[in-house]
Amino acid sequence: MKIARYALEDQVFHGLLRSDGMLERLHGTAFDTPVRTGKTDPLSEVRLLAPVAAPRVFGVGLNYRAHAEESGKPVPEFPMLFMKPDSAVVGPGDPIVYPREGRRVDYECELAVVIGKSARRVSPAQALDVVLGYTCANDISERPIQWAEMAMGCLLIGKGYDSFCPLGPWIETEVDPGALDISTRVNGRMLQHSNTSDLIFGVPELVAYLSRAITLRPGDVIITGTPAGIGPLQPGDHVEIEIEGIGVLANPVVAEA
Amino acid sequence: MKIARYALEDQVFHGLLRSDGMLERLHGTAFDTPVRTGKTDPLSEVRLLAPVAAPRVFGVGLNYRAHAEESGKPVPEFPMLFMKPDSAVVGPGDPIVYPREGRRVDYECELAVVIGKSARRVSPAQALDVVLGYTCANDISERPIQWAEMAMGCLLIGKGYDSFCPLGPWIETEVDPGALDISTRVNGRMLQHSNTSDLIFGVPELVAYLSRAITLRPGDVIITGTPAGIGPLQPGDHVEIEIEGIGVLANPVVAEA
Repeated sequence: MKIARYALEDQVFHGLLRSDGMLERLHGTAFDTPVRTGKTDPLSEVRLLAPVAAPRVFGVGLNYRAHAEESGKPVPEFPMLFMKPDSAVVGPGDPIVYPREGRRVDYECELAVVIGKSARRVSPAQALDVVLGYTCANDISERPIQWAEMAMGCLLIGKGYDSFCPLGPWIETEVDPGALDISTRVNGRMLQHSNTSDLIFGVPELVAYLSRAITLRPGDVIITGTPAGIGPLQPGDHVEIEIEGIGVLANPVVAEA
Repeated sequence: MKIARYALEDQVFHGLLRSDGMLERLHGTAFDTPVRTGKTDPLSEVRLLAPVAAPRVFGVGLNYRAHAEESGKPVPEFPMLFMKPDSAVVGPGDPIVYPREGRRVDYECELAVVIGKSARRVSPAQALDVVLGYTCANDISERPIQWAEMAMGCLLIGKGYDSFCPLGPWIETEVDPGALDISTRVNGRMLQHSNTSDLIFGVPELVAYLSRAITLRPGDVIITGTPAGIGPLQPGDHVEIEIEGIGVLANPVVAEA
């Protein structure tokens, strides 16, 4: 299933996307058992929103071998984790705002995991049972701030600016997260291209590791790290994240007013 | 004003604490203009809760000079920031759960700032206008995990375990955050004792710096860093954080089942 969250005539709905481009409107949210209202809305007439409202976003650094190499860092022995504030989350088509003080603001395509059930100390073998599905993330990063923070041993502002976490276009519940092509295009040119089979810590390991310490709950999002090929954006750019079997998350980059 | 959040007969209320120990029950939350319901509840008969429900918690590292020195780190040139997940937040009297894999779990007394108004790019001169008030925090930290994470340039699990962020006992709206005695007692013995006048980045600077990137909103909590004297807790310990003009936040430490 593809579960979208969308705005139509100043209301917010959730719906199941059919292959004919119609959304079957649901009662409740993505985290309830899907019950159709009987109404349908054309995808072309709605505004897609980030598929989860105000999620807790857990990020993972250096989780593809080739990206760890391009960063000149050793491959982590355990997941390198941080949080992005929910105020960073925007939806498909929303602008990524290039901050006034930004010097190098990068795209990062990432597979995002949407948690569907509460979980604490779940094993890797059972971890996928608490996952609702997957969407695309763009883990926007202001590198000089990120690097200065990481040199001190922390990470927030460099990845935490408002609009620095586009998510979407919807939650796909049926894909195997272990073997998905993932790519970034900027102004139509492919700049990242990899496969989630290259993840150092796969989705089961990440869910299990986080849940050892933190009670996960429906709506939590884990963005699983980016492959090699990172690079800068500029105001005016159009950036697309595509993940096989899920879809395309597209956002414009605009300068802060 | 002292604004408490509390449970009584399975309901949650907010109230203004009078000097006679009575809580004047309010309509709404701490973030609404206080309107009394006319009912009063004795403090001795309620269960105090963390004064903010499910806050975003922004933490600051190495923000007292003497603590930076005891940690063997240079004094930061800008605030060293991380987030604690809201699942870490517990209230007065709630147990701090010592995790199974814990090897050294430390107390850290901290002044917590509670944001009262939305803010983006507020100046230090205007930052206190968006603050509702202050409470006590205990920034519980599993040091070996924290150190291993910081060596990689991130920080989540070491400070993110469930129950690792006691907050309370209430929000005090009247104190000057720049000159408050702050201390930790474990089993009655004082182990940290300092004053917020020793903060490297004071409350106005922290609010301004965070809001440069992140839209702050009512209910956000900034825990401002801990002074020198950090040290370990053990299951069975009783830990108290006291801040002048605010009150005492007391919690037991229990081993995870």
